[in-house]
Amino acid sequence: MSVDILISEVGPRDGLQSISAIMPLAAKKAWIDAEAAAGVREIEVGSFVPAKLLPQLADTAEVVAHARTIPGLTVAVLVPNARGAEAAIAAGAHKITLPLSVSETHSLANLRKTHVQVLDEARAITGMIRALPADRRPHFEGSLSTVFGCTLEGMIPDVQVARLAEGLMAAGCDEIGLSDTTGFADPVAVKHMIRLVRGTVGDAAVTGIHLHNTRGLGLANALAALDSGLTTLDASLGGLGGCPFAPGASGNIVTEDLVFMLQAMGLETGIDIQALLRVREILKAALPDEPLYGFTPDAGLPLGFKPKQGMKRELA
Amino acid sequence: MSVDILISEVGPRDGLQSISAIMPLAAKKAWIDAEAAAGVREIEVGSFVPAKLLPQLADTAEVVAHARTIPGLTVAVLVPNARGAEAAIAAGAHKITLPLSVSETHSLANLRKTHVQVLDEARAITGMIRALPADRRPHFEGSLSTVFGCTLEGMIPDVQVARLAEGLMAAGCDEIGLSDTTGFADPVAVKHMIRLVRGTVGDAAVTGIHLHNTRGLGLANALAALDSGLTTLDASLGGLGGCPFAPGASGNIVTEDLVFMLQAMGLETGIDIQALLRVREILKAALPDEPLYGFTPDAGLPLGFKPKQGMKRELA
Repeated sequence: MSVDILISEVGPRDGLQSISAIMPLAAKKAWIDAEAAAGVREIEVGSFVPAKLLPQLADTAEVVAHARTIPGLTVAVLVPNARGAEAAIAAGAHKITLPLSVSETHSLANLRKTHVQVLDEARAITGMIRALPADRRPHFEGSLSTVFGCTLEGMIPDVQVARLAEGLMAAGCDEIGLSDTTGFADPVAVKHMIRLVRGTVGDAAVTGIHLHNTRGLGLANALAALDSGLTTLDASLGGLGGCPFAPGASGNIVTEDLVFMLQAMGLETGIDIQALLRVREILKAALPDEPLYGFTPDAGLPLGFKPKQGMKRELA
Repeated sequence: MSVDILISEVGPRDGLQSISAIMPLAAKKAWIDAEAAAGVREIEVGSFVPAKLLPQLADTAEVVAHARTIPGLTVAVLVPNARGAEAAIAAGAHKITLPLSVSETHSLANLRKTHVQVLDEARAITGMIRALPADRRPHFEGSLSTVFGCTLEGMIPDVQVARLAEGLMAAGCDEIGLSDTTGFADPVAVKHMIRLVRGTVGDAAVTGIHLHNTRGLGLANALAALDSGLTTLDASLGGLGGCPFAPGASGNIVTEDLVFMLQAMGLETGIDIQALLRVREILKAALPDEPLYGFTPDAGLPLGFKPKQGMKRELA
């Protein structure tokens, strides 16, 4: 089955890194298994960062090894630098994302690196990837974080965003992601930023966006991204997640609500929403003290709900 | 100052009718005063229903009398029938909304009336309004409730919706409102329904929509309505509200988050968002046991937030 929209579940990475509880490896495996079984085709399963910084993700190599056994699943990871990418490649990740904060202040706080240093890391990662046999090369995404504004610097000038997008492509990235790390985005800003970055590096190199629901605009921003032609949306089951270095920036958009919206709109995600809603039980059991978000899980599906057919052209 | 989008605050009616606590008259007045002072230009202040059914709104005539003293404020009320409209006219409401549930099952449960009976009431209301001097006639809206589906009947056929919209206009309504009573709407359905009803009764007769956030899609649906050219959006401060006869249908869209979204998009609402956020304190003090919703009040405004200027054309 082909899908219209790829949901990239980021809860096992962005969700778990933002909470203090450490989810046991077995629960992570069960979560990933269940979401993949529900039809989720890409999961960011962890991050290769030093265990002393993020002990919640210390078992990422084992999680990758397990997730790789699931047929058809794209196993994605975040890496802060070339050392992390080396570990990601050794573990066999299918997709590697390197964040580059367009706010240099945030970059220093988050990765302890200047823009020039992050671009150096990107070049080093490209070198490692290109040294691999063609069939073992992971997809390499450079993600522009704080691209809609930074809690430390405020708004970042367009010219700086464009320059850094170009820099990541020149460093060898396959793709540029947009990340509303701080929850500052609004629908007009989303459309503007997609136009800006696609205009800089080409439409084909910009397909995905990472949105937070910090000010409640997550799904409206996702709709704006769809209207602009993006086809990959990050989301976190139960809205778990956030950025520990951006105060108040908690909460990825909720996978359950996003999938409900897309299916109601007649956009195929390949996901069985009833099965997806059941995965939440795994989170509740493994993280009993963590608040989970989302409205669809509480309200249930509308009476007689069926995904629309053939209406997706009305989106435009 | 002219506004691009009219926010119609419905909390004092839809919010208060859905909770068991009864807000004292003085708190209602303080709430309405503070929201009007923050720049809100239309407030649905109550409903003329028998006090034994909704004791929370038993003081609506006094609330209308107070709200009428606020310069520039459109004082709106809901009425279930001609008797309620008579009271609304006597109190001096500027706008009267009569709901007509497109699901006849819901109409019977909510108003205890068939479609034919509700249209009879609409004609009786029109007769009363036209008997008034021209400068004292309230604006008369017929609101199609459960128009995106019903918790009792499921989806309602388009032909039935169109017929009822025509019926309300033939009965003398000035305007047709669309109401997602049950929280079933999605952005494609919103665009479809606006096209259907505008196509039936004309664009000028359909300017507003009443959305709930039952499944988290409230602001995405609002964005779809804006894209379709609607200019009036109902919302409830703190997301207070819902429909007591539609189980699980709690929660209007949150005024604070909606105003933040619109201002971030460069759409003028005439509202001072900082002053609006402060009104929430009145709700908290008067209804200490009620949960309030919304993300922007917790997260605060983005660092250096300024409403965009001159970007609203990018919406289309």
